[in-house]
Order: sequence, then structure tokens, then C-alpha cells
Amino acid sequence: MSQQDDIREMLDHHAISKLMVHYAERIDANDPEGAAACFAPDGIGHYWGKFVGREAIAQRLTGILDAFTATSHHLSNIKLTLSGDTATGLSYVYAFHRYAGSHDPMHYWGRWKDRLVRIDGQWLFAEREVVGVGQYLKDDPPSTNPLPGHPGRASRI
Amino acid sequence: MSQQDDIREMLDHHAISKLMVHYAERIDANDPEGAAACFAPDGIGHYWGKFVGREAIAQRLTGILDAFTATSHHLSNIKLTLSGDTATGLSYVYAFHRYAGSHDPMHYWGRWKDRLVRIDGQWLFAEREVVGVGQYLKDDPPSTNPLPGHPGRASRI
Amino acid sequence: MSQQDDIREMLDHHAISKLMVHYAERIDANDPEGAAACFAPDGIGHYWGKFVGREAIAQRLTGILDAFTATSHHLSNIKLTLSGDTATGLSYVYAFHRYAGSHDPMHYWGRWKDRLVRIDGQWLFAEREVVGVGQYLKDDPPSTNPLPGHPGRASRI
Repeated sequence: MSQQDDIREMLDHHAISKLMVHYAERIDANDPEGAAACFAPDGIGHYWGKFVGREAIAQRLTGILDAFTATSHHLSNIKLTLSGDTATGLSYVYAFHRYAGSHDPMHYWGRWKDRLVRIDGQWLFAEREVVGVGQYLKDDPPSTNPLPGHPGRASRI
Repeated sequence: MSQQDDIREMLDHHAISKLMVHYAERIDANDPEGAAACFAPDGIGHYWGKFVGREAIAQRLTGILDAFTATSHHLSNIKLTLSGDTATGLSYVYAFHRYAGSHDPMHYWGRWKDRLVRIDGQWLFAEREVVGVGQYLKDDPPSTNPLPGHPGRASRI
Repeated sequence: MSQQDDIREMLDHHAISKLMVHYAERIDANDPEGAAACFAPDGIGHYWGKFVGREAIAQRLTGILDAFTATSHHLSNIKLTLSGDTATGLSYVYAFHRYAGSHDPMHYWGRWKDRLVRIDGQWLFAEREVVGVGQYLKDDPPSTNPLPGHPGRASRI
């Protein structure tokens, strides 16, 4: 690749990273509409169920966020495959949650699997799925519904 | 924006990110003077109290760091608003702390709220405030002094 | 530095960050060979012992990963010193681990100390060392073998 190609790739990576940071910030601000606005108008959000369009996504996020008095979604390890005005992404999230009335945090380790699209120069989520790798709340029994784990994780044992 | 504008924005974002990483690294190296040097000479640090200038900041950080045998400040979600030679920022930190004589970690989830200024080509903190979102130490009772939480978090309940 | 120098520095930083993200992703995918491929052919991996070359590194990683049913390595705070086709790096990792048969996570806070080399345009690890800052598993007694801690941490007490 030429340096110009490398710069373009880095600019797209940066723009998408900013979208992801903004999404997490809006979630933690308890602003489901602001988070849903990070999706394309016909975007698809998978939150233990499939929700299509910003309104349905905002409504679903409201239901999820109402359980908590505080959340903190720490984003990292952004991996992207870019192709013109579309992209796919895998990124990591560690999320701290505090339930109303509870002192002990609920911890969540997951992945965001994304399809992205650039519309009028703005990157947006075409599809976003949350994939659980681990979850923990003190004194909570192990889940009987195991988490899917890291996408494509090899099971050698 | 032209590509040149985008590149300039990305260069500033990168330079400020490096400052923030350096600050955290100096904190975890137990080097209050090195961390304070990330501030402008007349910079303001809010650490449960207001401290003005590098010397006052270093002294305050010394008092905080003396309580711990290890700290680890994991930075993420850097969000910046750039305007020439000034900027504002919001970023996330998860911090691991170990108190002298204690095995159980003290966990802290917070935000760094920043005003930044570029002096002679070098970005520095003009003002930095730590905002708590969550804190946890095993067997510690819930604080009677609640944390401020994510800046601007909507309370819909 | 000219803007062109700054851009080159940022491109290298970005390329090395992507290598580090890819390494962590391959670890969490339980793919020791994929992780070992991030090393130069004669690369050195320090994993509580010194392992030279991709085959030895992959074998060592296999032994480590076999103990876990899930891992999640959250990378942050990447600090690099670049010099042409070589570089040194210090970055932060928080890692979630789940042992086979155990519900409680094992937490690890550490540093990756790296020497990097660019071969045929591709950055690779020439040497990578994991340095522990903290470790925690519920009901686990404090280790009698203390962790090295943040590289160069000042002990003022």
C-alpha cells in the first residue's frame, strides 16, 4: 500500500473508533436515543433479541438501562476490516454495572461485533451485536445459560 | 472537512492521547513530579480538592500515591473537542489499587475531564478533574458519600 | 518535527497497535500459532521462562491457554519509542481468565514490554515480556512470590 492508502485506512479507523467511543459514552450517560443515533436509519441491533431501526433500538436500550444506576463501558482492542464505504469490526468491552439497590458491581466482559456503513461521510452501525465472554456478580450462581464466548474461539480440549 | 483537516484532527487526537498515556504511566510509576509535568505551569488539578501549579499537584499526588503499593490506571474511550490550540476531553479510566498491607484490590471506575492547551507545540493539561463512577473494595460498606457518576448522566427513574 | 514526520510516527504507532490487538485477539481465540505468528521468526517470548522462535512460543502458549475455558485480554495505554525499523513499547493489559471448572474469574493486571522490528514492511515482536502488576482470584491466598510490578516503579516508602 502507498502511504496515501495507509493514511486513508488510519482516518477510517479513527472515525469508526470515535463512533464506538461516542456510543459507549451515550450508553453510560443513560441516553438510549443518543446511542441509537449511532446506527444507520435501518440499522440492526442485537441485544438478546433483534431490534431494527433507531426507534426500536432506543426502546430496547431503555429497557436494559433502566435496571442500572450506573454503567461504565470500557472499549478497547478495536479490529477493523475496511472496504470502501463498508467495514466489519470486532472490539472488546469490559463493562461495570451497578443495579439499583445493590452495592456489588455486575461485571461483564464482551465483544462488539459490527457491520459499519458510511453514509454522507459519516460512519454508522449497520449491525451491532453484543457477544458475552464472561459475567460476574458476587454470590450469583454460575449461569445455566453459558455465554457464547470469544467469536471463533478454538476448543482444543 | 478536507482530508488535510481530518489529518490535523487525528494528529492532535494522537498527541493528546499520548499525553494521557504518559500521565497514567507516571502515576503507576509512583512519580508524582513526572505526572505533574503533564500540566501547564499554571495548570489546575482537581483531586478531591483544587490544586494549582505543578508543585501543588505533585505534592497532592504524593499524598494520594503513598497509600498504595501498586496502582494500574487503564485508559480508554478518549473523546476530544478540538479548537486550535485548546481542547476539552472526556476519557475513561479503570484503576486497580493495592493498599499497603492488603491483598484485596480497590477498584475504581472514573472519568477524566480535561481542558487542554498547546504551548510551544506541546499539549498539556490546563485543568484535569477526576470524576468517580464506581468504587469497590471487598467488605467495604457502601459509601455514604455517593460518587458523582458519569458527567451529565440522565436520571430517567 | 514536520507534519510529515508526525504522520509517519502516527502510522507506525497505528500499525504496531494493530499488531498488539491482533495478538490479544488470537490469544483469546485460543490460537497459540496465530499469536506466535506475531513474532519475528527468531523472536523471543518471556512467559515465566524464555522461549525462542515461533514454534517454541506457540508450544508455551498452548500450555498456558489449556488451563482456561475463557480469556479476555484488554489492551490499553500503548507507549512507543520508534527508531526507524525498530521500536520499544510498554502497554497495559487487564486480563479476565476463567479456569476450567471454576466460576470465579482470575484477574490479572500487567504490562507488555516489547521490542519490535519491521521486516518487509510488517511490524513484528522481536521480544515480548509479560510483567505482572496484580493478580486476584477469590479465596486465593496472597502469593508468596510477589509480582515485579510496574517497570521502574519508584519505591518512596
